[in-house]
Amino acid sequence: MTADAKAQKRQKFEDVFPKLRQELLDYLAANGMPKDAIEWYGRNLDYNVPGGKLNRGLSVVDTVEILKGRPLTDDEYFHAALLGWCVELLQAFFLVSDDMMDQSITRRGQPCWYRVDGVSYIAINDSFMLEAAIYHLIKSHFRSEPYYVHLLELFHETTFQTEIGQLIDLITAPEDHVDLSKFSLQKHKLIVIYKTAYYSFYLPVALAMYMCGLSHTSTPSTDPYELAKSILVPLGEYFQVQDDFLDYAGTPEQIGKIGTDIIDNKCSWCVNTALTLVTPAQRTVLDENYGRKDAAAEARVKALYEELGIRARYAEYEEAAYKRIMGLIETVPETASADGQAVLKKEVFKSFLDKIYKRQK
Amino acid sequence: MTADAKAQKRQKFEDVFPKLRQELLDYLAANGMPKDAIEWYGRNLDYNVPGGKLNRGLSVVDTVEILKGRPLTDDEYFHAALLGWCVELLQAFFLVSDDMMDQSITRRGQPCWYRVDGVSYIAINDSFMLEAAIYHLIKSHFRSEPYYVHLLELFHETTFQTEIGQLIDLITAPEDHVDLSKFSLQKHKLIVIYKTAYYSFYLPVALAMYMCGLSHTSTPSTDPYELAKSILVPLGEYFQVQDDFLDYAGTPEQIGKIGTDIIDNKCSWCVNTALTLVTPAQRTVLDENYGRKDAAAEARVKALYEELGIRARYAEYEEAAYKRIMGLIETVPETASADGQAVLKKEVFKSFLDKIYKRQK
Repeated sequence: MTADAKAQKRQKFEDVFPKLRQELLDYLAANGMPKDAIEWYGRNLDYNVPGGKLNRGLSVVDTVEILKGRPLTDDEYFHAALLGWCVELLQAFFLVSDDMMDQSITRRGQPCWYRVDGVSYIAINDSFMLEAAIYHLIKSHFRSEPYYVHLLELFHETTFQTEIGQLIDLITAPEDHVDLSKFSLQKHKLIVIYKTAYYSFYLPVALAMYMCGLSHTSTPSTDPYELAKSILVPLGEYFQVQDDFLDYAGTPEQIGKIGTDIIDNKCSWCVNTALTLVTPAQRTVLDENYGRKDAAAEARVKALYEELGIRARYAEYEEAAYKRIMGLIETVPETASADGQAVLKKEVFKSFLDKIYKRQK
Repeated sequence: MTADAKAQKRQKFEDVFPKLRQELLDYLAANGMPKDAIEWYGRNLDYNVPGGKLNRGLSVVDTVEILKGRPLTDDEYFHAALLGWCVELLQAFFLVSDDMMDQSITRRGQPCWYRVDGVSYIAINDSFMLEAAIYHLIKSHFRSEPYYVHLLELFHETTFQTEIGQLIDLITAPEDHVDLSKFSLQKHKLIVIYKTAYYSFYLPVALAMYMCGLSHTSTPSTDPYELAKSILVPLGEYFQVQDDFLDYAGTPEQIGKIGTDIIDNKCSWCVNTALTLVTPAQRTVLDENYGRKDAAAEARVKALYEELGIRARYAEYEEAAYKRIMGLIETVPETASADGQAVLKKEVFKSFLDKIYKRQK
């Protein structure tokens, strides 16, 4: 796709947001809320929901288009985009609260919401209201659909999974207490799958599948949702490993920020891989320098990563992950259903993989 | 009911909690979560969910018993108690987060969860996981019921309403900035209804109604849920006005705590009533002394309340509220349905009103 077509696609998706925002504010107004509360909610939505890369939201629309195999009607587009914005709302709920939990300073090039003048702890309740928006919008637009309850359950379960992932991450890698004995590639995998893969990869595709009328089967072995999950969870894991690697190896020009995983004691793929390779002496270097608010300590860790060949390890990991996921995608059956119902397509997963493979940002 | 019967009833309800707690921990274990994460969630649940007065949870069970008009089977009891614990989980979600937002020190005679050693900001995610528990439990036990989706929507809507109420409260009465021009009895009413009445009074009764099979009607004017709401929302409002009054007028022996509404700049019924009665000179006293961290200022406000006759005003309010709500209860039709289906009963509302009227604690 050309850069121009991409920008157009994004613009079309972004154009749906003001309508959803207005519906939410109208709900408050219809309930007799005071003007300042309505304005506050509007600012919360504007500050925290658009403005990201929107990959998760856009992938709902993309997947619906692939599954239908034709351009969407205006009504279909609106509904797919609405579900996409619900994924973005879920993400906003997590980001606003994560930023408080991590005491982060900036997000998407602006101060974190809780650091905006007058917000502070109100950000906690504001994050709740981003989550609540999801269920209000889905009820308003999908209530009469046979898959309505599936949408609700999917959001519930994904939310719980993400929160579980966040809990493990928080107790494994608290910013202020370094204990690398808690880290392992196994723990990293668990955190990544729960904290990122479910909501970023499985959720958008499963939403699109429901919208296209794909049914669950009675046995998990033939359920298209289980099949999609079995591909998208490894894909999400690969995505996050890449993210961890780019935090270390990407230049600020590439990734649009300065990586801070080492300084912040993050349970990153890099440190976990290093832990499998170190000699006892190198382990001491890691223990003494990881997670310190100190540029020299960070440089020592980076030098150790170079010494251990983390770059080469990552290149190996990426090739293996790509092949493994391509193999999983090959197992997707594409027999058209007799009744013309939508079926899963390899292209859904390939389009994700293509966007991710060897990305530099 | 004797104190003994009351204690037994409470005990029976409390005995259900460990089963629900175990189900939640089993879910984490089944998902391969590490031991420390499972233990953490267990501590979160134990610390924050039981230990309150449990009035909201118990009222689900009470209402199911009244509507069925007979003792419950073990299975019915378990399901009613489960919904009751879901109300308590919702409340725990709000209390854990409210305590952070208000920077409170203690709750139910122990340090607020976020102040427990090692918890801190993790309390935000912990509060989310209390909310997520609701949907997990309801899905496990009510999925095949025809009213399942109604339970989900009811929790969604009530959660959103409570968060809206919390937002208005937070921006109307920030603890560190006194501006009485933002206060009014009208604003107080809105906060109280949204922040307290829906989840504390309407939610438990509506859950019980769904469990007893009461159907919605196509016109709001005959819908039993609308009727219940029209009584329970004023009842919740009356309850909170009483709570506000007791914060000022109740002795610590009565209310089990020392009232701090004046010091904390709370948008209480007392100050809002005072604002309707003050002369310009008295208003200056209020402006200068309300919401100050200062015992002398608090004493000046209390003296003004005495001068303005807030006690007598409250007695009038209480009588009027009681009469008004009794009048509303009288409108509840009790025609038994031809098919033996459960119908609404006056007793549901009377039992609430009796527990509240002239309570001293």
